[in-house]
Amino acid sequence: MTVCKMYGDLAIFSGTAHRALAKKVAAYLGMPLGGVEISQFPNTNTFVRLENSVRGQDVFLIQPTSPPTNDNLMELLIFIDTLRRDSAGRITAIVPYYGYGRTDKKDQPRVPITARLVADLLTVAGADRFLTLDLHAGQIQGFFTIPTDELPTVQLFVNYFRRLNLSEDTVVVAPDIGGVRRARDFAARLEKPLAIIEKRRSRDGASTEMYYVIGNVEDKDVVIVDDEIDTAGTLCSAAKFLRKGGARRLYACATHAILSDPAVQRICQSDISHLVITDTVPVHDCKARIIDDRLRVLSVAPLIGDVILRIHEGRSVGELFNE
Amino acid sequence: MTVCKMYGDLAIFSGTAHRALAKKVAAYLGMPLGGVEISQFPNTNTFVRLENSVRGQDVFLIQPTSPPTNDNLMELLIFIDTLRRDSAGRITAIVPYYGYGRTDKKDQPRVPITARLVADLLTVAGADRFLTLDLHAGQIQGFFTIPTDELPTVQLFVNYFRRLNLSEDTVVVAPDIGGVRRARDFAARLEKPLAIIEKRRSRDGASTEMYYVIGNVEDKDVVIVDDEIDTAGTLCSAAKFLRKGGARRLYACATHAILSDPAVQRICQSDISHLVITDTVPVHDCKARIIDDRLRVLSVAPLIGDVILRIHEGRSVGELFNE
Amino acid sequence: MTVCKMYGDLAIFSGTAHRALAKKVAAYLGMPLGGVEISQFPNTNTFVRLENSVRGQDVFLIQPTSPPTNDNLMELLIFIDTLRRDSAGRITAIVPYYGYGRTDKKDQPRVPITARLVADLLTVAGADRFLTLDLHAGQIQGFFTIPTDELPTVQLFVNYFRRLNLSEDTVVVAPDIGGVRRARDFAARLEKPLAIIEKRRSRDGASTEMYYVIGNVEDKDVVIVDDEIDTAGTLCSAAKFLRKGGARRLYACATHAILSDPAVQRICQSDISHLVITDTVPVHDCKARIIDDRLRVLSVAPLIGDVILRIHEGRSVGELFNE
Amino acid sequence: MTVCKMYGDLAIFSGTAHRALAKKVAAYLGMPLGGVEISQFPNTNTFVRLENSVRGQDVFLIQPTSPPTNDNLMELLIFIDTLRRDSAGRITAIVPYYGYGRTDKKDQPRVPITARLVADLLTVAGADRFLTLDLHAGQIQGFFTIPTDELPTVQLFVNYFRRLNLSEDTVVVAPDIGGVRRARDFAARLEKPLAIIEKRRSRDGASTEMYYVIGNVEDKDVVIVDDEIDTAGTLCSAAKFLRKGGARRLYACATHAILSDPAVQRICQSDISHLVITDTVPVHDCKARIIDDRLRVLSVAPLIGDVILRIHEGRSVGELFNE
Amino acid sequence: MTVCKMYGDLAIFSGTAHRALAKKVAAYLGMPLGGVEISQFPNTNTFVRLENSVRGQDVFLIQPTSPPTNDNLMELLIFIDTLRRDSAGRITAIVPYYGYGRTDKKDQPRVPITARLVADLLTVAGADRFLTLDLHAGQIQGFFTIPTDELPTVQLFVNYFRRLNLSEDTVVVAPDIGGVRRARDFAARLEKPLAIIEKRRSRDGASTEMYYVIGNVEDKDVVIVDDEIDTAGTLCSAAKFLRKGGARRLYACATHAILSDPAVQRICQSDISHLVITDTVPVHDCKARIIDDRLRVLSVAPLIGDVILRIHEGRSVGELFNE
Amino acid sequence: MTVCKMYGDLAIFSGTAHRALAKKVAAYLGMPLGGVEISQFPNTNTFVRLENSVRGQDVFLIQPTSPPTNDNLMELLIFIDTLRRDSAGRITAIVPYYGYGRTDKKDQPRVPITARLVADLLTVAGADRFLTLDLHAGQIQGFFTIPTDELPTVQLFVNYFRRLNLSEDTVVVAPDIGGVRRARDFAARLEKPLAIIEKRRSRDGASTEMYYVIGNVEDKDVVIVDDEIDTAGTLCSAAKFLRKGGARRLYACATHAILSDPAVQRICQSDISHLVITDTVPVHDCKARIIDDRLRVLSVAPLIGDVILRIHEGRSVGELFNE
Repeated sequence: MTVCKMYGDLAIFSGTAHRALAKKVAAYLGMPLGGVEISQFPNTNTFVRLENSVRGQDVFLIQPTSPPTNDNLMELLIFIDTLRRDSAGRITAIVPYYGYGRTDKKDQPRVPITARLVADLLTVAGADRFLTLDLHAGQIQGFFTIPTDELPTVQLFVNYFRRLNLSEDTVVVAPDIGGVRRARDFAARLEKPLAIIEKRRSRDGASTEMYYVIGNVEDKDVVIVDDEIDTAGTLCSAAKFLRKGGARRLYACATHAILSDPAVQRICQSDISHLVITDTVPVHDCKARIIDDRLRVLSVAPLIGDVILRIHEGRSVGELFNE
Repeated sequence: MTVCKMYGDLAIFSGTAHRALAKKVAAYLGMPLGGVEISQFPNTNTFVRLENSVRGQDVFLIQPTSPPTNDNLMELLIFIDTLRRDSAGRITAIVPYYGYGRTDKKDQPRVPITARLVADLLTVAGADRFLTLDLHAGQIQGFFTIPTDELPTVQLFVNYFRRLNLSEDTVVVAPDIGGVRRARDFAARLEKPLAIIEKRRSRDGASTEMYYVIGNVEDKDVVIVDDEIDTAGTLCSAAKFLRKGGARRLYACATHAILSDPAVQRICQSDISHLVITDTVPVHDCKARIIDDRLRVLSVAPLIGDVILRIHEGRSVGELFNE
Repeated sequence: MTVCKMYGDLAIFSGTAHRALAKKVAAYLGMPLGGVEISQFPNTNTFVRLENSVRGQDVFLIQPTSPPTNDNLMELLIFIDTLRRDSAGRITAIVPYYGYGRTDKKDQPRVPITARLVADLLTVAGADRFLTLDLHAGQIQGFFTIPTDELPTVQLFVNYFRRLNLSEDTVVVAPDIGGVRRARDFAARLEKPLAIIEKRRSRDGASTEMYYVIGNVEDKDVVIVDDEIDTAGTLCSAAKFLRKGGARRLYACATHAILSDPAVQRICQSDISHLVITDTVPVHDCKARIIDDRLRVLSVAPLIGDVILRIHEGRSVGELFNE
Repeated sequence: MTVCKMYGDLAIFSGTAHRALAKKVAAYLGMPLGGVEISQFPNTNTFVRLENSVRGQDVFLIQPTSPPTNDNLMELLIFIDTLRRDSAGRITAIVPYYGYGRTDKKDQPRVPITARLVADLLTVAGADRFLTLDLHAGQIQGFFTIPTDELPTVQLFVNYFRRLNLSEDTVVVAPDIGGVRRARDFAARLEKPLAIIEKRRSRDGASTEMYYVIGNVEDKDVVIVDDEIDTAGTLCSAAKFLRKGGARRLYACATHAILSDPAVQRICQSDISHLVITDTVPVHDCKARIIDDRLRVLSVAPLIGDVILRIHEGRSVGELFNE
Repeated sequence: MTVCKMYGDLAIFSGTAHRALAKKVAAYLGMPLGGVEISQFPNTNTFVRLENSVRGQDVFLIQPTSPPTNDNLMELLIFIDTLRRDSAGRITAIVPYYGYGRTDKKDQPRVPITARLVADLLTVAGADRFLTLDLHAGQIQGFFTIPTDELPTVQLFVNYFRRLNLSEDTVVVAPDIGGVRRARDFAARLEKPLAIIEKRRSRDGASTEMYYVIGNVEDKDVVIVDDEIDTAGTLCSAAKFLRKGGARRLYACATHAILSDPAVQRICQSDISHLVITDTVPVHDCKARIIDDRLRVLSVAPLIGDVILRIHEGRSVGELFNE
Repeated sequence: MTVCKMYGDLAIFSGTAHRALAKKVAAYLGMPLGGVEISQFPNTNTFVRLENSVRGQDVFLIQPTSPPTNDNLMELLIFIDTLRRDSAGRITAIVPYYGYGRTDKKDQPRVPITARLVADLLTVAGADRFLTLDLHAGQIQGFFTIPTDELPTVQLFVNYFRRLNLSEDTVVVAPDIGGVRRARDFAARLEKPLAIIEKRRSRDGASTEMYYVIGNVEDKDVVIVDDEIDTAGTLCSAAKFLRKGGARRLYACATHAILSDPAVQRICQSDISHLVITDTVPVHDCKARIIDDRLRVLSVAPLIGDVILRIHEGRSVGELFNE
């Protein structure tokens, strides 16, 4: 039988945000990255030029909008425009880390909803599809009308921790109210109980922050679960507070490891003995070296590679996650 | 000085979903509801005819998309189209209860995101602005690009419960993981601790549901906080489980009281002694009578009225909420 | 030679409005209906979940927007959104009966044009193509910008009546002014003369309705031709008036048999001896049984099936109608 | 009290299609036409330059898309673009005769729906509102999503014919099937019976056209009612056939008098004694002189003028037509 | 291996603007032009009917918007609408000469930007791609968001002039400031120096035009390079002025030969000995005969044919131009 | 008489790109800048919060997209989204320097047209109007469909140089082919001759750049005119080459002074004795100090201020430029 793909040949491109990940994905698929020249003019204008025509091809463009977020995002938009104007058959924007994902609602008056704005920018630039991993909130999928795939990494982490043979007395902890759903999903798959840390600002003049733990962590090993580590403030405060509350071993995991200053320093000074992250955003070698033997990076490249193939061939993505 | 309004005269209209609320709003503003004839042809097609021209007017149309949701939603869309085609100056859709708000993300593959779809339907029908109360998730605001106001009711409930002089030993409870953020907001304003009920499906063949309480409720009075009561299953299970866990007095509150069967029966049979709701959706008198002296309905009409005036006159809405 | 279809595999889905018709179409094409779970939450929110991925497939979704119109329409929109978000290759909405088709113009001030609104709703939900049968007015095709096929059923009826061997003295009758074009098309193909019934409201206070027949029906057999039978008021008044005017045998035909109350009763009490309809909308068995031996249902399933194949394979649809 | 208009000052502009009408409208409103320079470059490109700024003004642009249709339409679109780019506050396109209105449906395969296309062109060019008179089909209003007013002229004609004191034995005639609705509306207001002329192509090889009259015209005076007179073929064939069928006096009326060749010659040679038209399109003086004393032109300028004022001031347009 | 084209079969259509060119392109590709019936109703409405279905086909429609520009443009838009409504798989509008290209910016207040308007009209009519030759300004590509190819003809002209063995002392001349970039590109490829003619209006009351030559043309042969010859005013004034400045032999070339009156007369009376143009717009035989042995027409048909094939097969277009 | 503004009160806001200019504009208008808090989260996400409601106001937001371009552009987009979601009455984006303006066409294959992309981003973010100064190419106005004002600065420069009493033997020079139109406009207003510098790459292997001057500069004073000084490479090479060609005094002027490294150093080492710029982008004091007494900055703040007033009050902008 002759198999007919709906689009032209598969092509994988990478912006400058995270070429290491894109190379891994391409290697996994046994194909080269598409040739492109990306530069900045002295006036800081980003410029993109494809080395070869993508006319009719089924293009996947990999670019997390990690720091420097605005540069990476604008480069992504300009890259999409370039692909569109060169008549690509279909353009899938793969954004492993979706910057601005936390600005997803008006929790105070007179603020933007940048996560929606960015969805509109990607669409108006010419993206036909959008693919990401572990959004800050699932509702962000609804910010898009182009078909969207959000790949969950939870099973990667669950598999990893299963192999660790955690003690019976392990509790999964959400380090703040916003992360309860994610921690619960992880806890349920790991079949462990859940605890939650709540932070409140005291109403007296001093506006000190007060931490509460909801649930039981005393004499337990704990796994703190978060989606993103930025300055590691939330994570390390949680760790400190859990230790004070009697927790024993402190594990932590998070999908997106931004590690802005002073994250590395805080982690090193914390009692977290084991930190598991993925490579959705680039972690500078020097940072990794400092955190050293406590750090374990799980690669999402095989996952992205598998999904690219399935999208290209029109096969189900959902069944990859046993759902 | 001569004050110039940006739009024509203020006009308030109501669909058939909840004329009682619309009348209260209009009465609060000291003006009549706009005349309209709404009917269904025998073939179940909804029809709308305005009794007077709205050319250039600043129209506010009040219609919760409560059950029967599809009829109320289609009527709303057709009403908006009618206003647009009669050249209304500006159309604000006031949807006190946003039906389909719970279908706001793809938490399993191959499902819709109807909350986004409905936002697009309202926009394409011709709404210029959108106003609602207590969305199921704040991110739904980002489903709209037209200016949107989401009015919080939390202060209404807080004020009410403050007047009740709750005991010192009161705990605010989120009846499920999805409601943690809302319950936390309420608890913080009330300056009470928070507890959470988690429901898990056991992984054995029987798939029994297991309830866990995270936090401390023993010998406490509790206030269960939810956004919507549909069949009251979650609420009443929570109540039962809390009582089993040693809770004393059981209060409950929720913004949107859908009360589908068998909600009324369940509530009557529960140990909830005090249920506080608002009038964002119509509560049939017979239902109210059954629940009787345990039920207290807080009206959102003054809130909506105040906000209509502020929008009409171009004044801040946010400052109404001291934010 | 290898034939390459432009889209992925053919898939046929059905909403809940008329599964019997969808099944007939699928059977005609020798393939199963796609698996889907459609339900209503207790709060009357419609929910759709596909059982298998449709990624890249060429999907045809069959759903007349017959009563309950709003439910069937919203289900259709939500179904389309579901298919789009699951990355269907192409979505053709097949709406054998287009509800709201009669609200197609502002024949009085301050009314909607719902037939256009619905076209926009279908488009914004994500339909790529639209297919229907016998629109109330051909102009409704112009309400769409997505490619649209309107399949005429007139030849089905003509073929049927040819086989009946009507008497020489047969006249085709439009039961009101709005149906003249349709009746004329039918009459011309059947090579019979045309007559028209005109209804006027008398201008005196009583506002009685006056009927006039334009053309000659005395001592003739007549075939009343309409597009839709709702309550059968127009049809049965026409029959009565024609009989009073000397008509002999009364035949009637109509594409869309809504048969709202009291249509069945009226038809049974009328002198219409022979009523021919299609199955674009479901006719409840009980209704069919009451009308009984006067009723003849022509199935449009083979027509729809043939057209689906032609669209899927990129062949002309027009040539199917010898045009 | 200070009346605040929603838009800036009223301004009336005219393209080159029918300046005489625009001048009459402006004169009726007691204001000058806006200054504009319209020219064609030698390469036939149309060019528009406003003589004064329209920033913020409430602009009404009068331009029927009468022959030469394409030139007049493109000029209209370019004019709208000019107004938009000069920041007009609101642009109402007044198109007294809507060219391409007859191409409003696919009555055969593989043809355009140009009436919809033109609606989209006007919208994309930047028109905020659309105003026209007597569309070929009311559904064309649904081709627009911008607010649209269609002004009926029927009462102008009815008033005129009432003053003529027609004989008791007068019949209103639709000259073809497509005009039945219009003729019926006129007949009902005039309280006269209706007759219809049907044209069929004989199915033998010769494809001769056969005319039938449905209804009774013998020894009657008749008023033939049409929306548009192009070559006057339909009108004059109808007149001939009616005379052959025994009709006495022949009156005719039509809103839009295109009068393409050989319309004038045909009318002069016909037995029509009285032809009533409006000035929605320009009638060249020479043509008018030839038809001479049989011709009566009713001006729509006061109607358009009244409606402009109502739109500008945000007052009801519908009530002008006692509806 | 089986090659799979992304779209259905290739089809080439032509409007009435320049069937000679379209036929040449089709002949070059060894295929017939698609059958179509294009007519004008007496009321000057353009009408298009395809003779065969284009369902799913990859359609290329050739139509320069040369004079009569508005008729050719409207015909193009209506043709696109017809193809879309007949479900063409992909529609590429090939507009060899882009009328209104010179109205591409607001170089004075209160004028339109018609070149952008036309881009929007083509898009809203349903074009999926746009292809043209030698735009008046490259920025016009940015007026489109649909993929666009602008084919340069400069190499055709360069090749031609290389074969002429121009003298060593040849200078390339831009006949006005607006054409400097084009002339420079040509000069650089031909490796000849550049001169520029500047026209200024004197500021005294007389507003006489003053010509200046910037650069050296005395005792040189010159090649005047322009993109479009309309009335040939600029070209022939330049020729005259160059001759007065001591230039010897005068060559001229231009892509688009509109040749509006009195272009032919002016050229015949000029000292230009050799005029090279392309066939992007039709040149009437009589005009060509008058200009006679000075005229040389380079056909763009092979270029367009090659590009059609590359687009149809998803191969690079850019590499055709060695870039 | 009561003057009615079409929008609410005037409000002026500034992003962080150039608050000095915004303050000057506000001071010129005698009003404060609107309060806003702009920050970057540690993960480099930009965040905007308005200090007061802008509901219904006529907001002008000043932000050049100068370096760091991507940060300033994203901040601008997010700011617009914030204003829109806070229900501003009208949002005018004032972008004194339009970054990415030079990427305005595909002058080679497989590159983006970022100047159009940015226009679409601004529109989709919610800008209602766009205002800028001296675009790189006038056609960029056509990239917008929202109303756009491009303010020319040429008269500011002309006035300045007139006051300098330049020698009779002064020549205006375009430093490259792309700047000819701008230099010509300046030269004509100053009534001086024009010369042009052309840069060619030699076709031998070495690809050396060759400079040619077209026109006469020997023993002349020259004014080099450019729109933007980035690294000053073009400007200083031109200066050097002109001096070598016998030019005497070297003046230069440019609207947008980006002054990327090593612009300041190059200018200091050049023979340019007088450099005139505007303040459309911020010039760091240290840079200004280095260039010192050769530098003269003309402020565009009064110009912007006047135009804001005219837009706010609906008065002509064009007449400000005597056009």
